Amino acid sequence: MQHWGVGYGLWATAFSILNMHPLAPPLLSGSRRALARAITLAESTRPEHEQQAQALLAEVLPHAGNSLRVGLTGVPGVGKSTFIEALGLRLADAGHKVAVLAVDPSSPVSGGSIMGDKTRMPQLTVHPNAFIRPSPSSGSLGGVTRRTREAITLCEAAGYDVLLIETVGVGQSETQVAAMTDLFLLLTLPNAGDELQGIKRGIMELADLCVVNKADSDPAAANRAQSELNSALHLLTPRGARWQPRALQASALTGKGIAEVWDAAQEYRRTLGDALALRRQSQLLGWFDELLREAVWQRFLNAQNTDDLTARRREVQAGTLTPVQAVAALLGAAKSPTAGAGL
Amino acid sequence: MQHWGVGYGLWATAFSILNMHPLAPPLLSGSRRALARAITLAESTRPEHEQQAQALLAEVLPHAGNSLRVGLTGVPGVGKSTFIEALGLRLADAGHKVAVLAVDPSSPVSGGSIMGDKTRMPQLTVHPNAFIRPSPSSGSLGGVTRRTREAITLCEAAGYDVLLIETVGVGQSETQVAAMTDLFLLLTLPNAGDELQGIKRGIMELADLCVVNKADSDPAAANRAQSELNSALHLLTPRGARWQPRALQASALTGKGIAEVWDAAQEYRRTLGDALALRRQSQLLGWFDELLREAVWQRFLNAQNTDDLTARRREVQAGTLTPVQAVAALLGAAKSPTAGAGL
Repeated sequence: MQHWGVGYGLWATAFSILNMHPLAPPLLSGSRRALARAITLAESTRPEHEQQAQALLAEVLPHAGNSLRVGLTGVPGVGKSTFIEALGLRLADAGHKVAVLAVDPSSPVSGGSIMGDKTRMPQLTVHPNAFIRPSPSSGSLGGVTRRTREAITLCEAAGYDVLLIETVGVGQSETQVAAMTDLFLLLTLPNAGDELQGIKRGIMELADLCVVNKADSDPAAANRAQSELNSALHLLTPRGARWQPRALQASALTGKGIAEVWDAAQEYRRTLGDALALRRQSQLLGWFDELLREAVWQRFLNAQNTDDLTARRREVQAGTLTPVQAVAALLGAAKSPTAGAGL
Repeated sequence: MQHWGVGYGLWATAFSILNMHPLAPPLLSGSRRALARAITLAESTRPEHEQQAQALLAEVLPHAGNSLRVGLTGVPGVGKSTFIEALGLRLADAGHKVAVLAVDPSSPVSGGSIMGDKTRMPQLTVHPNAFIRPSPSSGSLGGVTRRTREAITLCEAAGYDVLLIETVGVGQSETQVAAMTDLFLLLTLPNAGDELQGIKRGIMELADLCVVNKADSDPAAANRAQSELNSALHLLTPRGARWQPRALQASALTGKGIAEVWDAAQEYRRTLGDALALRRQSQLLGWFDELLREAVWQRFLNAQNTDDLTARRREVQAGTLTPVQAVAALLGAAKSPTAGAGL
């Protein structure tokens, strides 16, 4: 009797040789409707949808990658939506195809937040060169970031050349967004003196650009904020770094400074050059390693006797077993013939 | 034919029933020599030593836990050694048994750094109530922190009731030290205006106490630093937290303020009360989970065909396979009968 270890890889290969996914042609020719449907497919948690989505992604992957991926973050009230709309409209008017994605693991409603996004960026929403997609609503940050990464690939395959990926700044979402973008932009307010200490630790280090938004509301404070941010960015940047992160001022309401932000982004892109491609490769490998670790862990948990695990945790908690002993006991047990028989 | 899944757990149980480890009795009666030898055993990477160390740790575990574990960090030049010596001497003179441990994953030499520690804390080194141990020198942070956690258990079993665990602030070592201590103390310098921005992001959030050291060198600057740190700590502390982290001043050279630091530590201990025990339990479980994840991952890597893994990584890097597909392909292959036959 021959036993086939037919994993998903083989299945997907067969699928992609024999069939082209019906969404691929319209997606590659830039149909917004096909793009929206492809993202919905990738967001679905039904196994057959996941397989179709992976086949589709593999198919369009060679056509992806031609964009500048910009991550944006900032505290609530900083004017993120207005800023994204102002920047997005400017670029869309100039002929760029602009996609706006969001990473918000806290987002509870799926349908609701689409309406929300349409309301908060009213002009960009109806622009023919723009595509706006709210955060996938599946609970975990891991799930949301995976789906956002896949949406990036799909948007690029559909010809979008500027991707604006915003994060609401919940938990680790900034780090995740920085790990999937080329340029990370931090929006702040003019009162940066207090602001500096309020900015979540670790975020400043991720920023390639800081923008003091609503600068016209208090020009003197905005100037101070800009120079304080510039010295902080200077302190945080290692000597010899190719790019020195910098602070700018803008007003999304009046449009002042928006062009300068885009100029700086272009300068950043030119300055980094090849380093940007290498950065993307290492982001991709980092994502793969993360997924693989998580999958290996989940496979272990599925094969693991839950009572055993709970018992060991209790012993560790009670101090009757050292953590190292508990691990050895568990992995010793997992090697026994009973546990392996199911394979 | 019966197949025994004899893991290390069983072996250790048998060992601890049949033999008491010869180091246990002198260790439990407080012998510094036995303690030093037990830590050396726990630091050894030879498999038979690791097993002996685990048996010894399990044996003494019920006698551990009766200490205040204090983590200390600060930039080079802040006067960490002098501060630890001043605080340690004061406590040792008052009858406390004080152990000083270090977490320094960058430490390259083992023998050399013992001499270094003896030189930098000359009085504490020779005090009968003190025990000073340099950082284990095994390269990875994971290895160093595991060995430090084990050294904590051994010191407590030997009757040490104040543990001062210092970190040099390389990479993630502060987070690791905070995750194994009850109280985390950040040492800073009087020029905290510049300092604040120079402090590695994320470190302020870990601090239960900040101490402006060398305060007598510039009293006006020290006052400013203290009040700036206090406002930063205030901003960083969630409403309703049981303990409001605070900034103090001290001068390790003159001894001024050292008593106040210890008073604050005692107040911290009283204020947290039962919460401290719960924190320790969750630290222990966190450590266990971390070890288990890492062990599961290592087991996967050992069983994994390296060429397969490399090939998939290349495909991901080249963009011919999505990360999700590459993971599915690898774990599909791992499920095949060939890979499982070895078990």
